[in-house]
Amino acid sequence: MKTFLDCIPCFMNQALKTSLFATDDDVKIKKVLDEVGDMVKNIPMSYSPVQNGEIVYKKIREITGVYDPYKEIKQKSIAEAKSMYDDLKQKIEESENPLETAIRVAIAGNVIDFGVELKFNLKEDVEKILKQEFAVFDVESFKKSIENANEILYIGDNAGESVFDKLLIETIGKKTIYAVREIPVINDVIVQDAIDSGIDEVAEIVSSGCSAPGTIIEKCNAEFKKLYNNADVVISKGQGNYEGLSDENRQIFFMLKAKCPIIARDMNVPMGSIILKEINK
Amino acid sequence: MKTFLDCIPCFMNQALKTSLFATDDDVKIKKVLDEVGDMVKNIPMSYSPVQNGEIVYKKIREITGVYDPYKEIKQKSIAEAKSMYDDLKQKIEESENPLETAIRVAIAGNVIDFGVELKFNLKEDVEKILKQEFAVFDVESFKKSIENANEILYIGDNAGESVFDKLLIETIGKKTIYAVREIPVINDVIVQDAIDSGIDEVAEIVSSGCSAPGTIIEKCNAEFKKLYNNADVVISKGQGNYEGLSDENRQIFFMLKAKCPIIARDMNVPMGSIILKEINK
Repeated sequence: MKTFLDCIPCFMNQALKTSLFATDDDVKIKKVLDEVGDMVKNIPMSYSPVQNGEIVYKKIREITGVYDPYKEIKQKSIAEAKSMYDDLKQKIEESENPLETAIRVAIAGNVIDFGVELKFNLKEDVEKILKQEFAVFDVESFKKSIENANEILYIGDNAGESVFDKLLIETIGKKTIYAVREIPVINDVIVQDAIDSGIDEVAEIVSSGCSAPGTIIEKCNAEFKKLYNNADVVISKGQGNYEGLSDENRQIFFMLKAKCPIIARDMNVPMGSIILKEINK
Repeated sequence: MKTFLDCIPCFMNQALKTSLFATDDDVKIKKVLDEVGDMVKNIPMSYSPVQNGEIVYKKIREITGVYDPYKEIKQKSIAEAKSMYDDLKQKIEESENPLETAIRVAIAGNVIDFGVELKFNLKEDVEKILKQEFAVFDVESFKKSIENANEILYIGDNAGESVFDKLLIETIGKKTIYAVREIPVINDVIVQDAIDSGIDEVAEIVSSGCSAPGTIIEKCNAEFKKLYNNADVVISKGQGNYEGLSDENRQIFFMLKAKCPIIARDMNVPMGSIILKEINK
């Protein structure tokens, strides 16, 4: 997915929001905005939004000197999601269709996103998404694909959401590699967050090598690229990964909630939709 | 009121939104964003937001070549407000407290604001605001001031809102000068909009000389400055005028709905509040 004009004010909003999380030094925050402002005229619009986002978040790290501004928030999100784990596990097991319920739970976790403007209430949103109709729901093909799979590559998105990903991985019950970001960016899941979420109990955790708030294959490390090329099934969670991977040539199953108007438009669904979408069947 | 860091992404949002109203030429829109981005590092933060906003809207006019992008929207807003005029007039006349009801109606009109992100439904919002509690309500002092006044300077804000301003001016029943912007900026009221709203039937219309989306005294023309200095009562509608006038030394009555978090913070009221606030009693 390419960068749209609407992404530009959004970069500025994200720069302010993350800088405010990182520091209370107005001079540094203004410097971030100055540099992101300066960057606008050189933004390659053919790049995906996350590719440009990577540059924005790099500037925030450099200017504020804060490596992981969302660290505490991520820990809280993981703790909150963990407090819901047993109940949701039971709900999935007792459900008529455990796989579908687990997919819904994993998508519900995708509301834990500090890169967008929307507020969320995890418990309420989970309840809603458990009943919500899918705007795109390629579940039959997904079922077939995982039945035949030996190895699944599961690309995580946000910390906290990762706890719900664990439930889906357990429900699928196949050998899974869980890929995370190389370094902290927004509240995206990194290796330590995945371990804190208990992912290490159900999957092998690898870093994609990517420092953007999404997955850009050219910027991933060799190990991830190999996994990506060879995996029987690729599950991609969330908007950032969709932005980076939507024009890829291999089969991918995207699971996400459409929280950004541009992504909703790109996917041709209403804002707020939940989606299980297959590309390159 | 000075410019806050939060205003900077907002300038970018406004630049995009207004450019999209003005043109469908992506190259021109991108050029606007480039220039507003470039402007960030030089923004005088001691200026009021509308003073910086003036520069943003000037750039939009210059680059898109469109002088009045909200012209149609303003006409629609005026027509919609006019369709409610008779009902509201009756409501005011039959009300136990006509002045207070007319103030509420005039503030309700302030929801017609295309400079902010909030959506509005004029009919529903009027009903709500007719019952809403005021966060600040300096009505006793306002009553006294208008009783003793020979001449009132009423500084308009948005086109459409102007129709409801007419109702308040009629209810007050004193000689009134209605001040408007010099040139089109967002959906702010200009001379023609004021005439289309029927203001000429109840007040003398003057241009403040100001091209910002608010009133900045130093940038106003000599006629307006004289009126402003000599008026017995000054009524200032809306956020833009508040931004420009909140640090002034003369008595002013501000009437507005707080639709921007920064203004709400500056006024120490919750977002969405309705306000009749006197300064320099």
